[in-house]
Formats: sequence, structure tokens, C-alpha cells
Amino acid sequence: MLPLPGLHGTIAASLAAFPSTALDRWALRRIQQTVPGAAIRFTLWDGFSLTSGPAPPVASIRFNNRGALASWVWDPELNFGETYMSGAVSITGDLVSLLEEIYRRFPDTKRRRFRLQGGSNDISRARAHVHRHYDLGNHFYRYWLDREMVYTCAYFPEPGTTLEDAQVAKMERVCRKLQLRRGERVVEAGCGWGALALFMARQYGVSVTAFNLSVEQIAFARERAREQGLSDLVDFVEDDYRNVSGTYDAFVSVGMLEHVGLDGFEQLGAVIDRSLTGNGRGLLHFIGRDRPLPLNAWIRKRIFPGAYPPTLREVCEHVLEPPGLSIFDVENLRPHYATTLHHWLQRFNDASDRIGAMFDEPFVRAWRLYLAGSQAAFTTGCMQLFQVVFGRPSSPGVPWARIGG
Amino acid sequence: MLPLPGLHGTIAASLAAFPSTALDRWALRRIQQTVPGAAIRFTLWDGFSLTSGPAPPVASIRFNNRGALASWVWDPELNFGETYMSGAVSITGDLVSLLEEIYRRFPDTKRRRFRLQGGSNDISRARAHVHRHYDLGNHFYRYWLDREMVYTCAYFPEPGTTLEDAQVAKMERVCRKLQLRRGERVVEAGCGWGALALFMARQYGVSVTAFNLSVEQIAFARERAREQGLSDLVDFVEDDYRNVSGTYDAFVSVGMLEHVGLDGFEQLGAVIDRSLTGNGRGLLHFIGRDRPLPLNAWIRKRIFPGAYPPTLREVCEHVLEPPGLSIFDVENLRPHYATTLHHWLQRFNDASDRIGAMFDEPFVRAWRLYLAGSQAAFTTGCMQLFQVVFGRPSSPGVPWARIGG
Repeated sequence: MLPLPGLHGTIAASLAAFPSTALDRWALRRIQQTVPGAAIRFTLWDGFSLTSGPAPPVASIRFNNRGALASWVWDPELNFGETYMSGAVSITGDLVSLLEEIYRRFPDTKRRRFRLQGGSNDISRARAHVHRHYDLGNHFYRYWLDREMVYTCAYFPEPGTTLEDAQVAKMERVCRKLQLRRGERVVEAGCGWGALALFMARQYGVSVTAFNLSVEQIAFARERAREQGLSDLVDFVEDDYRNVSGTYDAFVSVGMLEHVGLDGFEQLGAVIDRSLTGNGRGLLHFIGRDRPLPLNAWIRKRIFPGAYPPTLREVCEHVLEPPGLSIFDVENLRPHYATTLHHWLQRFNDASDRIGAMFDEPFVRAWRLYLAGSQAAFTTGCMQLFQVVFGRPSSPGVPWARIGG
Repeated sequence: MLPLPGLHGTIAASLAAFPSTALDRWALRRIQQTVPGAAIRFTLWDGFSLTSGPAPPVASIRFNNRGALASWVWDPELNFGETYMSGAVSITGDLVSLLEEIYRRFPDTKRRRFRLQGGSNDISRARAHVHRHYDLGNHFYRYWLDREMVYTCAYFPEPGTTLEDAQVAKMERVCRKLQLRRGERVVEAGCGWGALALFMARQYGVSVTAFNLSVEQIAFARERAREQGLSDLVDFVEDDYRNVSGTYDAFVSVGMLEHVGLDGFEQLGAVIDRSLTGNGRGLLHFIGRDRPLPLNAWIRKRIFPGAYPPTLREVCEHVLEPPGLSIFDVENLRPHYATTLHHWLQRFNDASDRIGAMFDEPFVRAWRLYLAGSQAAFTTGCMQLFQVVFGRPSSPGVPWARIGG
């Protein structure tokens, strides 16, 4: 998908020896103008540089060859990531601050309303996508996730809460929002390494049927259930959530909706509808948007194939409204995800040598950029994190008092 | 709009002397079948009655003449209210329980998705609608509202909180959700008798510009501002919210959106957008639905002309999404509105002799039915009460910890 793939390699390296031309400098200026006023220094291989903005630059972007420069003119959204990953572009200064500068200045025309085309996630494609991201090895994720291996937004009662405590606080919050009572049956769609399912069973005495397509995650989760003596209460099922059967008092899905895609929303709504008892409650926790916009092209290519963070409106319209479910509560946890990502990125950077030895440097740079970019997207408001609680309209489910901060 | 208007009068009265025919009994059965299994006794003028449901009837509906019976076959949604109001239908037993039985059994086909047609509320029509409902005389509302004259859903920290305290708690909750700080400027769209505007100025030291089309309410509110020495801080403007000018730190509207109508949503979004500063926050408090459905025809005819309670999705799509506003928080206060209405109905019934002397018996019955029907709509989940907090995506406005119960 790169417009000038060859130029990233040896040919490009030889070009770097040449001084920049007027055309190169025009290209740099053009790139700079896509983020007007950003406090960023843009530099070419021969030292030529441009700076704009009233403040001193927060970071520098250096194009190490002409191919990288040309690829940014062609498709900056995709090739920022591609060239950073390959090393054809270097960044000095704080990566998160740099990305925040870019996101804040991104012109609003780029944020026009659109309707996502194509690419449904049928079960085999969903399985391939899940395998690609989540089966990178549990060791890899152990380096930078918390002790419980929770790979979704945490909840920080105080900004200084540790990540370990914040993930427990998030799980506690989810259970309280669902009003779980001992003996109830819960179904979880997309259970990761099983932390929430095990927490619900252990702390709230509910039985849980938890679905996940990731082979490695399910194996890990089953082992934990055995270790904790919870195998009777928690059933980890290596299958697609669309194959959920039976009825449950609660439906919960934390961090899966982003992977479903708009095309699958009505079916998800139907699964929830047929799974929930008359007094059943549900919770959807997902990365969302204020306005419909596709996920960054590079993130889709390298990190999350098939992913789409929806607006709250799209979730209402396509998931909850068709079965007539009632929205009880919506919380936007945006600042909590920025903080969660801050912790993940710090731990990731601390372990980058070991991760580099497991994979390679482009992999390390790709994941660093993904984590830093996600943090910047939450601090600047390009992305939201919605927790939506819902239930049957006829049930007495809207709680008298909601869970506060 | 009544199909058989003459029959409600003297002709109908004379018919009542006749025994019911097979056709009358067929009609009664047909009416009964519109709410299958409801624990309601349906009775004709000559004592013939039908009862269904496993439980003893919660109440009886008595048709006092053939015209009333025929009008229910023709259009039960409209003519339930019309015939109860005129006295052609009598109800014994608890009115709220009766309406809950009906709402719970209302077949789902009646709740099909639809798109509302016609009837935009331009400013002159909006003014006429507001005048019709809100200019009935402050004395009338004094009989059954709280001390502060707040005619919107209260917030009950405990189910046993008094209505007076619950309305203060609601205003406090709105201010905290808006994160008001001393010296800020607030614009209020649809300010009723001014209670919230005065509360914000008094308790939070903000200046408020408050809009309302009701002549009587604005006069009352201005008088209160003078009495409380708040005229410098609160400017009550007798005008449409569409004429809001200037910029503000907060936009608040409690109980007005239901009167705007879908056609006016984009314009409301544009007003909010041009009024809010970069760090501005907003709150919309409104009666809503799980799925699009017109307001009951009788309520539109007799109580709230031009009103439409929207879904959360419609508010996202047409008000908040076009200007790119970010949703921070949504709370469904349905049980609180059921309790608020319970208080209002009790007070209304206690004052019904005095209200009957001010107006007439059909007026008293109409308002009793409206209040009881609204209470039943909230207890059964036919209606929701959403409080939506929003702001600019780029602002640091999403609070770290939200307001709990």
C-alpha cells in the first residue's frame, strides 16, 4: 500500500547523501501546512528545517530520505506511521506531545461526516483479526499491562492511583453499574485474558460464560480459572460472541465493540436481545467518536485490522434501538484512558529492549507510536471512551442512584 | 377532531337509558383486546362488564354512553382522554395503576419505528404553544408545584426526600454537572419561573441570561429577581432561545427540548455552538424515548401542542453531532420523574376543588389524566428522562470524576 515502497530501502539511503532541492523544500512546507501553527520542527536529511507556531517546538520530525518525504505528501495519515516504523523518519522530543500538537491542529475539513464503506467482519475474518493482534504472545503483553492483564481503559479514583489498583477499580465499577447479585448469570463478549470474568465470579459470586476468539487468551484465562478454583463458575468459550446461547441476567462487553464494525451492530443488538432476561442489564464499554470518522489508516493496517470506533449515536441507532433497549447511563472516561495509556507507554518504553529482542525495532516503533498516538487522541478529544449501561424499558432496572466518581 | 362529537352531549345521555346491544358488547370486547391480559374491568352503561387477566382488576373503566364506546373503537389513543375529560367515561380505582396496566400491555406493533412528519415550531407557533400551556395562571401551578415553582423532574437523594428538597437537589446537581465557577456567564434556554437561573446566580455567583416565551413566567421571574436582589446577575429575556446572542461558559436547558420538535434540532445545535466558549459546557435535560414515537395524540391536542420527546440518538444526531460537540455524561432519571409526578398528582388532587372553581371539571379531569398518565409512562418505561452533559472535544471538560447518586 506504500506509494513508493522501494525508496524506503537502500535507494532511499543513497539519496540522503544529496542536498535537498527546491522541490524537497516545497514538499516539506506542504506537509507543515497540513498542521498549521503546530509547534513542531520539520527537518530534512541535510539539516534544512521549518518551524511554525508561537511556542518553541515540542519535538522535531526529521525526514531521513526523499522517499519518506514524498510518501507524506501522498498520504500522511498512513505514511507517518509507515516511515516512523521503518526508521525513514526520526522523531526527537516527546512523541505524545508531538502527536497532541498534530491532533489539535488537524483541520476540521478532515473531520467531515462520512458513512463507513465495505469490510464486514464475518466470523472467519474476525478470527484472523483477533489472532493478528491478541495472539502476539502473552509475554509481550505482560511487559506493559497490569498484573491482572487488563487491556482496556482503567478507572483512576485519583489521578495518582496505580495502574494495578485502577484496573481493579474499573472492574468493580463495571460490576456495580451492572448491579450484579450473587447467583446471577453473566455473559461476557470479548473477555481478553479473563480478568473481568474471574473478578465477577470471585467478588460477586456470579456465574460467567465468557467468549473470545483468541486462542492464546482463552488458554491463559482457563489456566487462571483453574489456579483460582473458579472453573465451576467461569466458562471460557473459544468462540465468536455471535454464537452466544442461553439467557443471562447481565450482558457485558469491555473493549470489543470497536472490533465489531458498523455492519455487525444490528446482529450484536439481536444477540443482546435474545440473551437478556426481562430484568437483565447490559454494559458496553468502547472507544468512540463525537462524529463518524474511520480509524486512522495506519492503525487499521498495522495494529487493528477491521476496527471502527463508533459514535454513541451509531451504537444507539444500530445496537440498542432496534431491540428497544433503554439507556440507563452513559459515562465518558476519556481522561482515564489517557492516563491508562500513559502508564502503558511508560512500561512499554521501559521494556523496549526486551520487546525489541522478542520482535524487531520496527515492531517496537510501531507499538510505541500506536500507544503514544492513542494517548494523544484521548487527551485532545479525538477519541472518547464510552461506558453505556442499558436494560429492558419495562424492567425496574434504572437505578435510583448512579455510581459517582 | 372527535369522530362523533354530538354523541357526547344530550343525545348520548338519552342513549344511556337503553340496554346495551350485541354490537355494543362486541365493541367493548374489541377495546378490551387492545390491552390483552390487562387487569382492568370494562363496563357498559347498563352494567355489562368484561374482566381479563390473572389478577383482580386494579380499576374499572365505565362507558356512560354509546358515543364514548364508538369513539374508543375509532381512536382509543385520542378518545381515552377526550371521553374521560368530558365525563362520558368514568374511572373507579387508582388512575395511575390503571394507566400502568395499559402501558405495560400496549402491543409492540404500536411502538414501531417511525419518522415524525410535519408541524415545525416556528417562533410564532412556539409562542402560541407556550402561551397555551404556561400562561394558565401562576396561581394554578402554585397549587401543585414546589415552593420554588420548578416544573421539571426533581432529583430525590432518597425516595422519601420532600419535593421541595428534591427540586433544590436537582438544581444543585445541574450546577455541579456544569462545573460552574464564580463569575462565569450562563445562558438558559426555557427558564420557566426562573428558579434555576436564580439558584445558579445565588449559589454559584454566575451571571445568567435566561430566555422564555411565556409572558406570565417572565414577569414572575423578574419580580423574584428583584425581591432577591439578583436583578444585576440575572437577566430574564422574554424571547425565543433562537435569538440568543453573545458567548457563554455554560448553556443549560431544562425541560425545553421536548417543545422544540425534530425540525428545530439542528438550529438548537447551531445556537449552542455559537454561544459556547472554547471551554464551555452544556446540559440538556429532557423527556425522551427509547425509540422514535410521537407523543400521545390526546396530550398533543389538550396539553402540549407541538411537543415531541426525542430519543437520545436523535439528540446526538441532530443537536450535538453537527457542531461536533462531545458527550461527557448521560443520566436517565426515569424513576425520579415518576416520583416527582407522584407528588404533583397528590397535590393536584388535594387542590382539585379549588382548581375546579378556577376552571371547570373537564379541565381538572384533563390535567389529572395528564399527570397520572405521565407518572405511569415513567414507571413503565414508556418515557425516559435524560440529562446530557456535553462540551467542546478539545476542552479539558470531561470531568475526572462524575457526580454520583
